[in-house]
Amino acid sequence: MTIDNLLKELLEKVKSGEIDVNEAMGKLRHLPFEDLGFACIDHHRQLRRGFPEVIYCPGKTTEQIVKIFSALAEKGNNVLATRAEENIFEALVKEKKFPQARYEKLARAIVLEQKKLEPSRAVIPIVTAGTADLPIAEEARVTAEIMGQRTELICDVGVAGLHRLLVHMQKLQSANVIIVIAGMEGALASVVGGLVSCPVIAVPTSIGTGASFGGISALLTMLNSCAAGVAVVNIDNGFSAAVTATLINRKIEAKA
Amino acid sequence: MTIDNLLKELLEKVKSGEIDVNEAMGKLRHLPFEDLGFACIDHHRQLRRGFPEVIYCPGKTTEQIVKIFSALAEKGNNVLATRAEENIFEALVKEKKFPQARYEKLARAIVLEQKKLEPSRAVIPIVTAGTADLPIAEEARVTAEIMGQRTELICDVGVAGLHRLLVHMQKLQSANVIIVIAGMEGALASVVGGLVSCPVIAVPTSIGTGASFGGISALLTMLNSCAAGVAVVNIDNGFSAAVTATLINRKIEAKA
Amino acid sequence: MTIDNLLKELLEKVKSGEIDVNEAMGKLRHLPFEDLGFACIDHHRQLRRGFPEVIYCPGKTTEQIVKIFSALAEKGNNVLATRAEENIFEALVKEKKFPQARYEKLARAIVLEQKKLEPSRAVIPIVTAGTADLPIAEEARVTAEIMGQRTELICDVGVAGLHRLLVHMQKLQSANVIIVIAGMEGALASVVGGLVSCPVIAVPTSIGTGASFGGISALLTMLNSCAAGVAVVNIDNGFSAAVTATLINRKIEAKA
Amino acid sequence: MTIDNLLKELLEKVKSGEIDVNEAMGKLRHLPFEDLGFACIDHHRQLRRGFPEVIYCPGKTTEQIVKIFSALAEKGNNVLATRAEENIFEALVKEKKFPQARYEKLARAIVLEQKKLEPSRAVIPIVTAGTADLPIAEEARVTAEIMGQRTELICDVGVAGLHRLLVHMQKLQSANVIIVIAGMEGALASVVGGLVSCPVIAVPTSIGTGASFGGISALLTMLNSCAAGVAVVNIDNGFSAAVTATLINRKIEAKA
Amino acid sequence: MTIDNLLKELLEKVKSGEIDVNEAMGKLRHLPFEDLGFACIDHHRQLRRGFPEVIYCPGKTTEQIVKIFSALAEKGNNVLATRAEENIFEALVKEKKFPQARYEKLARAIVLEQKKLEPSRAVIPIVTAGTADLPIAEEARVTAEIMGQRTELICDVGVAGLHRLLVHMQKLQSANVIIVIAGMEGALASVVGGLVSCPVIAVPTSIGTGASFGGISALLTMLNSCAAGVAVVNIDNGFSAAVTATLINRKIEAKA
Amino acid sequence: MTIDNLLKELLEKVKSGEIDVNEAMGKLRHLPFEDLGFACIDHHRQLRRGFPEVIYCPGKTTEQIVKIFSALAEKGNNVLATRAEENIFEALVKEKKFPQARYEKLARAIVLEQKKLEPSRAVIPIVTAGTADLPIAEEARVTAEIMGQRTELICDVGVAGLHRLLVHMQKLQSANVIIVIAGMEGALASVVGGLVSCPVIAVPTSIGTGASFGGISALLTMLNSCAAGVAVVNIDNGFSAAVTATLINRKIEAKA
Amino acid sequence: MTIDNLLKELLEKVKSGEIDVNEAMGKLRHLPFEDLGFACIDHHRQLRRGFPEVIYCPGKTTEQIVKIFSALAEKGNNVLATRAEENIFEALVKEKKFPQARYEKLARAIVLEQKKLEPSRAVIPIVTAGTADLPIAEEARVTAEIMGQRTELICDVGVAGLHRLLVHMQKLQSANVIIVIAGMEGALASVVGGLVSCPVIAVPTSIGTGASFGGISALLTMLNSCAAGVAVVNIDNGFSAAVTATLINRKIEAKA
Amino acid sequence: MTIDNLLKELLEKVKSGEIDVNEAMGKLRHLPFEDLGFACIDHHRQLRRGFPEVIYCPGKTTEQIVKIFSALAEKGNNVLATRAEENIFEALVKEKKFPQARYEKLARAIVLEQKKLEPSRAVIPIVTAGTADLPIAEEARVTAEIMGQRTELICDVGVAGLHRLLVHMQKLQSANVIIVIAGMEGALASVVGGLVSCPVIAVPTSIGTGASFGGISALLTMLNSCAAGVAVVNIDNGFSAAVTATLINRKIEAKA
Repeated sequence: MTIDNLLKELLEKVKSGEIDVNEAMGKLRHLPFEDLGFACIDHHRQLRRGFPEVIYCPGKTTEQIVKIFSALAEKGNNVLATRAEENIFEALVKEKKFPQARYEKLARAIVLEQKKLEPSRAVIPIVTAGTADLPIAEEARVTAEIMGQRTELICDVGVAGLHRLLVHMQKLQSANVIIVIAGMEGALASVVGGLVSCPVIAVPTSIGTGASFGGISALLTMLNSCAAGVAVVNIDNGFSAAVTATLINRKIEAKA
Repeated sequence: MTIDNLLKELLEKVKSGEIDVNEAMGKLRHLPFEDLGFACIDHHRQLRRGFPEVIYCPGKTTEQIVKIFSALAEKGNNVLATRAEENIFEALVKEKKFPQARYEKLARAIVLEQKKLEPSRAVIPIVTAGTADLPIAEEARVTAEIMGQRTELICDVGVAGLHRLLVHMQKLQSANVIIVIAGMEGALASVVGGLVSCPVIAVPTSIGTGASFGGISALLTMLNSCAAGVAVVNIDNGFSAAVTATLINRKIEAKA
Repeated sequence: MTIDNLLKELLEKVKSGEIDVNEAMGKLRHLPFEDLGFACIDHHRQLRRGFPEVIYCPGKTTEQIVKIFSALAEKGNNVLATRAEENIFEALVKEKKFPQARYEKLARAIVLEQKKLEPSRAVIPIVTAGTADLPIAEEARVTAEIMGQRTELICDVGVAGLHRLLVHMQKLQSANVIIVIAGMEGALASVVGGLVSCPVIAVPTSIGTGASFGGISALLTMLNSCAAGVAVVNIDNGFSAAVTATLINRKIEAKA
Repeated sequence: MTIDNLLKELLEKVKSGEIDVNEAMGKLRHLPFEDLGFACIDHHRQLRRGFPEVIYCPGKTTEQIVKIFSALAEKGNNVLATRAEENIFEALVKEKKFPQARYEKLARAIVLEQKKLEPSRAVIPIVTAGTADLPIAEEARVTAEIMGQRTELICDVGVAGLHRLLVHMQKLQSANVIIVIAGMEGALASVVGGLVSCPVIAVPTSIGTGASFGGISALLTMLNSCAAGVAVVNIDNGFSAAVTATLINRKIEAKA
Repeated sequence: MTIDNLLKELLEKVKSGEIDVNEAMGKLRHLPFEDLGFACIDHHRQLRRGFPEVIYCPGKTTEQIVKIFSALAEKGNNVLATRAEENIFEALVKEKKFPQARYEKLARAIVLEQKKLEPSRAVIPIVTAGTADLPIAEEARVTAEIMGQRTELICDVGVAGLHRLLVHMQKLQSANVIIVIAGMEGALASVVGGLVSCPVIAVPTSIGTGASFGGISALLTMLNSCAAGVAVVNIDNGFSAAVTATLINRKIEAKA
Repeated sequence: MTIDNLLKELLEKVKSGEIDVNEAMGKLRHLPFEDLGFACIDHHRQLRRGFPEVIYCPGKTTEQIVKIFSALAEKGNNVLATRAEENIFEALVKEKKFPQARYEKLARAIVLEQKKLEPSRAVIPIVTAGTADLPIAEEARVTAEIMGQRTELICDVGVAGLHRLLVHMQKLQSANVIIVIAGMEGALASVVGGLVSCPVIAVPTSIGTGASFGGISALLTMLNSCAAGVAVVNIDNGFSAAVTATLINRKIEAKA
Repeated sequence: MTIDNLLKELLEKVKSGEIDVNEAMGKLRHLPFEDLGFACIDHHRQLRRGFPEVIYCPGKTTEQIVKIFSALAEKGNNVLATRAEENIFEALVKEKKFPQARYEKLARAIVLEQKKLEPSRAVIPIVTAGTADLPIAEEARVTAEIMGQRTELICDVGVAGLHRLLVHMQKLQSANVIIVIAGMEGALASVVGGLVSCPVIAVPTSIGTGASFGGISALLTMLNSCAAGVAVVNIDNGFSAAVTATLINRKIEAKA
Repeated sequence: MTIDNLLKELLEKVKSGEIDVNEAMGKLRHLPFEDLGFACIDHHRQLRRGFPEVIYCPGKTTEQIVKIFSALAEKGNNVLATRAEENIFEALVKEKKFPQARYEKLARAIVLEQKKLEPSRAVIPIVTAGTADLPIAEEARVTAEIMGQRTELICDVGVAGLHRLLVHMQKLQSANVIIVIAGMEGALASVVGGLVSCPVIAVPTSIGTGASFGGISALLTMLNSCAAGVAVVNIDNGFSAAVTATLINRKIEAKA
C-alpha cells in the first residue's frame, strides 16, 4: 500500500467525520514503527520495500540485538541478523523463545524462518573467485533464501583458470541475474559480465593481502568494469547483493 | 545462441563430413569480430549480451573513432559513441555516410538509429539530485533509449528539499528499476532506495568541490547505503547505469 | 509555518468541506516549488530554513543559471549565485531585467539585493591566515551580508606570526561566532579556538602546494583540532560557513 | 576576565609601586596552569573558554590519568575523562578520593560532578541514524550535561526509513542547535539540515564496513552536504560536537 | 599440450566416429579440474603454466586446506601452501598421510616435495634490505626451490650502508634475474636495478612504521624506479616474485 | 666489463708503475660520464646495463633536451627520447645534425637509429585491452625495437569479449615474455597470466574515468593478480615494460 | 631582542612614569607589523626569526603582490617573492621603483638584493637526482643566497647511476648540511644520508608520472628513509629546505 | 677517515709493493662489516656517520636481536635497540653478558652505555603537545642522550592553551635546534617555528582518533607549515628526530 493511498484513505475518513482532525493528526504520526528507546523498529518496511528490517549486528550490544530480534519475531516475521558472532546466537538460545532460530556459521548469520515463502522459479547463481570468498557467498545465499529465492553456489572459478568458469556458461547465460563475488583483483565480474545478457551484481571482498587494501582493489576493478551491466555493492556486502538480486528476480517473476 | 550450441552444431557437421577438421578449426577461430588493426570490433556482442558494442571515445583518435563507427554502422546496427567531443561528430558529418547520425550535446553522445526497436512498456525514471547532474542523466537517457527503453527525467530533487522528491513517489514506487544520479554527498540514492521495492542503480557524479574529490564522496555514500537494494556504477557513468537498468527491464518484460 | 501546521490547516478544511479530497490531494502535492524542467526551484526554502535557495553555478550552463536566477528574482527575493564566472554575470546583464545585480569579483558571486534586511547587532569576525585565502573570505562576507549579518575581515594573521593575531583578541573574545579561514597547515582554527568561548566555524582552503593536497591538509588539521568547539565545513566553502554562522547569530539575536 | 584586563591591572600596580618590576615579570609568567611534569593542567581554561579542561585518555598511562584527574578535582571543578576504559575508572575508585565519580559505560566516560550547573532552558536534540551510533551519542550527552545542557536522544531514525525521522520534525524545527550522528553513508545530516532553520553539528561515526573506511564515507558525505548550515566535527567525536552545541546554546541563552 | 591441440585431437576422433557428438561435448566439458564443492582444484595448471596450483591459506578454514592439500598430493605433485599458520601444519600432521611434509616456520609455508626436480644451473639471488624482510625472502626461497631453482640469500644490504651491497656486485652482475626485497623506503630495488643488466623483480614489504603505510611507501618507490628493468609484485608477495623469476630462468635454461 | 675488473686492471698498472697514485686517483674519479652542468650523461650505462641512457623529456626544457640528445648522439649511439612533445622534435630538426631522427607521433617518442642491432629471434607480443591503450603500446614497441627486439601488437582484446583474446592463444603460449597493457579495470593481465607459462609484464594505463583514478584501479588489479608470474611497472610506463621484456629476452637468446 | 626583554623595558618605563598606562597598553599593541588591509606585513620577522618575510605568490593578485613587495622594499630589506609568474615581475618593472630587482626564470623567483650579506664560510651542496628537478634546486639556491649562504649545485646524480654521485663524496662528506632534491622514487636522500655525518634536508619533487602521484612517492620514500638524520620538507618546497639549511649553517658559523 | 683517503693509502701500499694486487683486491672487499647470515652489522657506521648502527626491533625475531646486540656490544660500543618489547630485554638479561643494559619502558628502548660521551654544551628542548606524545619524546630523549646530547622535556604545551607554551619562550629562543612532537592536528610545530631563529625538527605522532588517520593529519600539517625552517621526520619517529638534532648540534659545537 503506497503512502498516497494511506493518505487518501485517511482524508476520506476525516471528510466523512469517521475520525476527527486531532485523531487524524495522531494517526499520521502513529506510523508503523516501534520505538525501543535505542532502536526504531521499522515494521512497515515489509510493505514499503518488500522485505522486513534486517539486524546488522556490529556496534550493537548483545542485549540490544536480543531485544530487537524479539520485537521483530513477535510480529511473526522471518528474522535475519547478519555479521552475528556466535555468542549472540547463544544469548538468543538462552531466551528460549525462538527454538527454530539457527546459526549459519560460515555466513555469520542468525536465521529465524517463521513463514515459508514460495520458492522462486528461477535460480540465482552465486559465483565466487576463490574458496576464501565463501563466507560472503554464504551471507548472500542465506539472505536470498530467507527472501524466497533459490540459489546455486559456483565456487572457486577465478580468472587464473578460466576453463573452470567456462564449464558453467550455460547456467550463467540462462540466469535472470548473477551475483559475482571476488577479492584480490576482482576480475571475475568483468569476465562474467562480458559473457551474459543479464545484470551482474558484483561484490568485492576483502580477501587478499598487501595492495588489495582490504577490498579496495577488487572494488575499483568492479567499478571500472569494461563490461557494462555490472553494478557493485559495498566490500564484503553479500547481504546487499542478495537483496538487489532478489528485488530484480521478484520483479521478473511478478510479471511472468 | 549460446557458445555450447554453436559448438554442438559444428561438431555435428564435422561428424557428418559436411566440413572437414581443418575447416572446423578455422571456423572455431573465425569468430564474429572484425580486426581493424587498432581495434577488434565485436559484432558478436549483440547476440551474446543483447546490445551492440558501444564506442567509448576518450583516448581514441578521431580517425580511429570514424573507422570504428563506420565498421559498426555498415552492419546496419544502431551505433552509439559516448563521451564524444563535438569535433568528432563534425568529422563524421564530413564523411557524408550517416546523414541520420545526430549529436546529443548535453550527453556528449553521437547516436545513429538505423533500426527502431519496439519501445519498452515500462518507463525507467532517471532521477537527479541537481541540475548540474543533467549531462550524466542525459547520457543515461540516450543510452537507454537507443536500447529501446522509455525513460522519464526527474531533475533537481536532492535531499536539501525532500518535498521536491516526495511529490514523485507514486511514479517511483511503481517503477521496475530506478536510476538515481547525484554528486556532492550523494544521499539521494539511499533516500530513494529506502522508499521503493525495486532495485536502484546509483550513479555518483563528480559534481561538487573540495572534499567531494571528483565524485569519491558520492561514490562512498552510495556504496555504504543503509538502504539495501542499491547497486552502484562508476563515477559519472550514466552509460553503464542505463545498460544495467535496460538489462533488468528487458528480463522483466521478456517474462511478462 | 511548520509542515505540521500546514497539514492541520488542510485537514480542517477537508473536514469542513471547504475543499474536497481530490483537491486536498492536489494541494498536498502542490508544494511551493516551481519546476523549470532542469531545475526545481525551492521557493519554500525561505520559510523552512530562513534563507532563500542559492544558485551554485559549477556544472550548470549559463542559460540554465539565467533562467533560475530570473525565476528566483521574480518573487522579489534577494538572489545569490556563487562560484560564478564573470561571463555569467555578463549574460545576466544582457537580460536587462536586474539593473541592481552586481558582480563581486574576488568572491566570484552575483548578488541581487531586492529587499534590505535589518543589519545584525553583533559583528561576525572573518579571520584568514593569509592573503591568498581572501577569495573564500569574500564569499563568506558576501553571503553573510545578504543574509543581514554585519562582518569584519581580519586578514593575514596566520600562526607564523602569532602577534598579528593576538592584537585582535578583544574583538575575537567578544564575538558570538567566528569564521576562521586557512589553507596550508590550517593551524589558525585551533589557535583561535583555544582562546575564545564562542563556537568557531573553520573553513579549510585549497591554498598551498605539494602535500597540502588541495586543502586536505588544512581540512584534517581542523577536524583534529585539539581545541573543542571548532566545527568544520567543506574545503573552500566560505558560503556554508557564512550560512552556519548566520544561523547561529540569528538564533542568538532572536532570543536577545 | 580577558588577557587585556589582566595586563592593565598589572600595569596599574606596577605604576603605583604596589609590585615591583621583577615581581610583575614573575606574575606574567605565573599563569594559572599547573605543571605535573608530564602534563600542564590548564586551570585557566574555564575562564577563557567557558568549560574546564577535559581528560582525553588514549595514549596516557592509567597512573598519569589518575594524577591529572586528582589535580583537576581538587580545585572543586566538575571533571570529565573521555574514551576511558573501565579499568581506569577502577583505578580511580581505589584512590577513594572521589566517591561521587561515576563510570558511563556506553559513553566510555568518567564523570565527576562537584558543582551542579543550572540546566539550560532549551533542549539539545541528539539524533542518531542507527543503534550502533549510540556510544557516540552517549559521549555527546554526557559532555553536554556536565556543561549544564539538557539533551534528548532521538535514536535510530536513519534515511532508510524516513518516516521515523519525520515524526520528530516539530521537536527538531524548534531546537536552537541539533547534533546529528551517523555512520555508513551519513546522509542523515543533510536530510535534517534541509528541514530546519538552526545550525546542525554533524558527527560522522566509524560504524559500517568495507568502503565506509572507518568513518571516511560519512565524513565526506557530511562535508559535502548540499544543505548549507551543517558543520562537521571529527569522526566519532561526540565530545567536540557537544562542546560546540553547548557554546552555541550558551550564547543564545546568555542573550535571552 | 596446448588447448588447440586438444581440440584438434578431439575433432579428429569425432570425424572418425571414434567418439560421438555427445561424448565429445562431455569431454570438452570434462576439463582436468576436480570440484570439491568449496574449491575447484586446477590439476591442469601444471601443463598450462608450468607449475602446479598453490594453496594460499588466508580466508580458508583449516578443514578446507587439508582437503585441498590432500587432493593435490594424491596426484603425486609437489604441494606448497603459503601463509600457513603453524596450526594448519599440525592438522595436516594429524592426517598421517604426508610424512614428508615439512613446515618452513620463517616462510610460513607447508612444503611437500614428492618428486625432486632437477636443480637449475643458474642461481637466483634473493636480496633483502633488512633482517626484518627475511620472512618474505624465505617465502620466495621456498617457492623457487620447490619449482627447481637454486637460490642464494643476500641479507641486510640496504642503502643506509651501500658498501654492504657493493661487495656482492659480481654475483649480482652475473645473475639471470634478481629478486630484491625491501620495506621502509624500498630504495634498494632502484640501486640494484641501476647496476645490472638482468631484470629485477622487486618485492615491497610491509616492514616500517608510520608513513610506510603497510608497504605503500616501498611499493610506490619501486613502481617509480628511475632504473628501467625493475618490475614489481604485490606487497609482501615473495611467492609471486619467485614464480616470476622461475618462469624467466626456466625460459633461459630451456633455450640454453 | 665489471667494476671489479676495472679496479684490478688499474691496480696492476699502479703496481707496475705505469701510472702513479694521483693519476690512478684521477682515473678512479674520471668515470665515463659527461657533465653538461644541468645533466650528467651516463655514457657508461650501455656497458653496465646493456642499453644506453634514454631521455625522459617531462620537466626538462627543450634546450636541455637538445643538448643531451646531441651529447648522446655524438658517441654514435642509438638515441631515444620518450614523452616528447612534437615541438621538441621540431627543435631537433632545426639543428640539422640528425637527419635520420624520426618522430613517432602515437608513441610520443623521438628515435635516432644510428646502428642497426641484429633483430631478436623471438617476437615479443604487446597486447592491449583497448584501442585507447595504443599510445602506451607504441611506446613499448618503439623502445623494444630500438633495443633490437621484434614485436607484435595484439590490440583491443579486453575481457569484455574474451573470444577476441582466445584466438591469439597459440602466439601467446609460445612467447618468451608478454607485455600486457590495460586501463580501466586492468583484468587482462590476470587472464593472460593464467593461460601461459612465460612471465607477463603488466602495464596499467590511465585510460578510464571516475574511479579509475588515473590508472590506480588498473595498477591495483595487476598487483593483486591471482595469476602468479605477473610483474607490474608504473602506470603508462610502456618504456620500462619494454626494457624489462628486452632484458628477459636477451638473457634467453644469449643462452640459446 | 626577545619578547621578554621588550616587556621588561616597557615595565621599567611605566614604573618610572616615563610613559603612562594607556600609552603602555598602546605600545604593547603597536607591534612591528603593518596592516595593508589584505595583508599584515611582519617587519618584525627579521628580528624574531633571522630572515625577513618572504612573499609566496600563488593565490595573491598581482596588485596585492606589488603592494606587499613595495612595503617590504621600502624598509630597505632584501625582498624575495617565490613561485612568481613572469608577468608579476613585469608588473613590478612597470612601477620603476626597484631597478635592481631581477627575475630568476628557472627558480620562478623575484629577487631584490638591497643589502649585501657577508657570504657564509661553508658551502651548502644542493644535490638533484635529475635534470627535471632543477627548478626546485634553483629556488633553493636563490633563497639560500639571498640569506647570505654560498651554495653549489650537483645536478643529475640519481641512483640509476650511482658512480655519478660517488665522485662527489669528498664534497658531501665535508659539508655542514646538504639539500637533496629528488622526484620519482626519491631514493637519493637515503643514499646520501647513509654516507655522511651531517644532517640532510630532503625535498621530494613532483617530477614523475603515474604512481609518483605528484610527489607522494618521493615524499614517502624520504619520510621512511632507513638512514637516520634525513628530515623532509614539503613537495617541491626548495624554499623551506633552503631556509632550514641556512638556519643550521648560521648557528654553526655563529659559534665558530 | 674518508673513503678517498682509504683508497689513496691502499694505492700507495700497492705501489710500494707493501701489498700485492690480490691482497689489495681483498682489502677493498674486506670492508668493516660483519655478516651474521641474517644481518650485516655495519661497524663502519660510527666512522662514516658519527653514530653506531642502531637496532630497530620490529620484524626481527628475539633471537636475531640478541645476536645483533651481542655483536655490536662486543666491539665496546654503546648499543641502542628501539621499539623493543619488554620480553626482548628479558631475553637479553638471561644472556648475563650485559649487566649494564637497562630497559627504558616509556621509550620502549634497550640502552647499553659502555663508553660515556662528553655531554653537549647546549641543551636540546624536546617539546610535546600532549601527555600522550610522551613515549615518542622519551624515544627522542634516550637516543639523543646516548649520542651525548643534553635534553630538556617540555611537555603538554599544545596550542589549545598557548600561554603554556609562551612561558618557555626564552629557553626555546636560545636553543640551537628544537624537537617538536605533536599528534592530532600537529599545529605546535608551526607555532614554535614562527617564534624562533633555529631549525625545528617536527615529529608527527599517531595520537588522535578518526580523521587523524594514525598520524597523517599531523604529518600533513607539519609538511605544510607556513613557518619555514620546519623539517619533518616520519610519524612517531622520535629516534630519527633525535639523530637529526644531534647531527646539527654536533656540527655547531664542533665549530665552537
